[in-house]
Amino acid sequence: MSIITLTTDFGLKDHFVGALKGKIISGYQEAQIIDISHDIDLFNVSEASYIVGAAYNSFPKGTVHLIGVDAELTKDNRHIAMQWNDHYFICADNGILSMLTQKIIPQKIVEINIHDRLPEGSTEMDAFVAVACHIAKGGQLSVIGREIAEIKEMSELQPIVAADQNSIKGYIAYIDHFGNCVTNVTEKLVRDTAKGREFEIKFSTKTIKSVRTNYSDFTVRENFTIKDYEGDKLAIFNEAGFLEIAIYRSNPQTVGSAATLLGLKFRDVINVVFK
Amino acid sequence: MSIITLTTDFGLKDHFVGALKGKIISGYQEAQIIDISHDIDLFNVSEASYIVGAAYNSFPKGTVHLIGVDAELTKDNRHIAMQWNDHYFICADNGILSMLTQKIIPQKIVEINIHDRLPEGSTEMDAFVAVACHIAKGGQLSVIGREIAEIKEMSELQPIVAADQNSIKGYIAYIDHFGNCVTNVTEKLVRDTAKGREFEIKFSTKTIKSVRTNYSDFTVRENFTIKDYEGDKLAIFNEAGFLEIAIYRSNPQTVGSAATLLGLKFRDVINVVFK
Amino acid sequence: MSIITLTTDFGLKDHFVGALKGKIISGYQEAQIIDISHDIDLFNVSEASYIVGAAYNSFPKGTVHLIGVDAELTKDNRHIAMQWNDHYFICADNGILSMLTQKIIPQKIVEINIHDRLPEGSTEMDAFVAVACHIAKGGQLSVIGREIAEIKEMSELQPIVAADQNSIKGYIAYIDHFGNCVTNVTEKLVRDTAKGREFEIKFSTKTIKSVRTNYSDFTVRENFTIKDYEGDKLAIFNEAGFLEIAIYRSNPQTVGSAATLLGLKFRDVINVVFK
Repeated sequence: MSIITLTTDFGLKDHFVGALKGKIISGYQEAQIIDISHDIDLFNVSEASYIVGAAYNSFPKGTVHLIGVDAELTKDNRHIAMQWNDHYFICADNGILSMLTQKIIPQKIVEINIHDRLPEGSTEMDAFVAVACHIAKGGQLSVIGREIAEIKEMSELQPIVAADQNSIKGYIAYIDHFGNCVTNVTEKLVRDTAKGREFEIKFSTKTIKSVRTNYSDFTVRENFTIKDYEGDKLAIFNEAGFLEIAIYRSNPQTVGSAATLLGLKFRDVINVVFK
Repeated sequence: MSIITLTTDFGLKDHFVGALKGKIISGYQEAQIIDISHDIDLFNVSEASYIVGAAYNSFPKGTVHLIGVDAELTKDNRHIAMQWNDHYFICADNGILSMLTQKIIPQKIVEINIHDRLPEGSTEMDAFVAVACHIAKGGQLSVIGREIAEIKEMSELQPIVAADQNSIKGYIAYIDHFGNCVTNVTEKLVRDTAKGREFEIKFSTKTIKSVRTNYSDFTVRENFTIKDYEGDKLAIFNEAGFLEIAIYRSNPQTVGSAATLLGLKFRDVINVVFK
Repeated sequence: MSIITLTTDFGLKDHFVGALKGKIISGYQEAQIIDISHDIDLFNVSEASYIVGAAYNSFPKGTVHLIGVDAELTKDNRHIAMQWNDHYFICADNGILSMLTQKIIPQKIVEINIHDRLPEGSTEMDAFVAVACHIAKGGQLSVIGREIAEIKEMSELQPIVAADQNSIKGYIAYIDHFGNCVTNVTEKLVRDTAKGREFEIKFSTKTIKSVRTNYSDFTVRENFTIKDYEGDKLAIFNEAGFLEIAIYRSNPQTVGSAATLLGLKFRDVINVVFK
């Protein structure tokens, strides 16, 4: 129970991330600090939510995830700590955790109430660090906060299952370093709606006929080389459990990526159509 | 006494930072290495000085801070190690530490003289690593250098207090990831000059009437929501102790930042005017 | 034997690097993970090869180097682990290691064959992580793979020694953060071909008359200050053992760099001419 991950919009040039780590080490020298990302778009709660949701499962149970995005303490933006699926999350109550809580019910949520006990001049991050060190050392949530029943839902577009159950309408929620386009449609939603039916992915004027289980699964099973597939568009369910539109071996810096070659942008609509 | 922080202008793409860490681990496997920044502008001693000065205080006493900026060993640019406020700093004598030594007198400064004892082909960083590991293990400065009384002052503009004590003239010294503009005027200088008087911040045609204690302190105390303040310009004394001109929840990538919205650039003049 | 280095083209914004570290820590909590680079150009095997080759030697013997570049498992792109010069390398068999194996014969190479033993839905990185943790814990290569005799050579231009032994033709293989231009010509090749002769470096219409042993060695030995040399072009054998064309204290963001001032680009030809 001594890993603390960090996800922030602080960037890597300023002293902010280094100082945050210094505070954690000052509070708990045995902490193992692991960066998830410090390049979240500024104040982009939706993006932080996707990144944390995609990463947490690679860490052991008991890991503490500190999220420093849009974390100013205000009446509207309380500080919370959540125990969920045996992981711990510390952040502001700005919807960041709703992507997780839609899937699994939290074990416990508290509103952090230690701010008055911190030294004069303490910041939001000082409060988060104190809570993170407390939990990483095995402390109880009830010591640092007051239990609450509900947290904010993110005001994001949700995927919509058609009334006739024959299609799902989603949108592009994140475009990654490879230019691949992650949708907000989960594998679970597709499987539950499909009830065994085949399906296609449609967007703009294009159709993708099948979903692969990983980027290269077709090449190991057939008599083709990688080169036969380079540049092919494909759909996969990615490791984070979301439907993703990709170009095999795409490169945004040179030949182009799914985003550029298929003309897909953040928020563009995609449809999963069942047969 | 086993934390070693790194501040360099090496960038993160090349192998330089990884190799530096490998050398430290080779020299002292128990070292806890923490990055402060590797994106300092090339050879920018002033920027490195601000970043290290803003970060060091978040680390425990005894931390060793290695600064790899403008570190070529020459007659003009000696290698030094300094014990100061119970922290240790290793760098070239290029003015980087003068921001610190203006505030508190160093406990000890040595000119590093171990270069001849290193293997043939050793580099500047090899010397810094040897010294950092030596200190992190609890070694004495006198073993790796010869005590000196003075180090170089940075040839930077200093804030100027008017002869009548009614204003302070400073300038924008650093623009951070959020586009906020850090000045070279410290809270201490303002308080000492104010002697209890109120003051305003003036720059270009603009005036900021009050200084806040943190980015969101006004919102938790009043009957307004965050949205009422979004985009407001404000001045704060930041965690590093410097006066900073900011825009509440600004975003350089979208709506703009203090730097862009207020037209502030590196080196622009700001005035603190007392009433 | 517990250090694991990471070199990937994953970028630092997405969750990929954080998740990779989480998996390693899940598999072997005592692992010391050190980043070499995550900003390799996408699928650029040549660049990854240079970066890993330049960094590995700064790490202790027994270090495990995981290379996540162009790592999709296919018939053409097997997963391999290599023991070489008492270091371990885990990557795809895409030529990445040939820069190393050209210099020193590997101690052992295996084709990784544990993929069938991993849980359903495992990825390439899961396989690499399992192997890295196994080796870092002191496990044998024979447990995770089948010994093979040969790996792929990189289809890169090699430096060419003229038939009369009076020159070597090479090219610019990498341009670093400082804009310095690393060639594919090793110090060893130059020394072996020189047989004691002097030599010059020629490219385009320019000539560099001597090779320095480090960036600033001339300044410490002469009655000049740094400023006398700023902007001078120079050639050195860099720490990685390659001939490099540099500008003393160059800065790509301001005054320009070797790449911009000398008009050198990736793949441009340089000649070492013996007298």
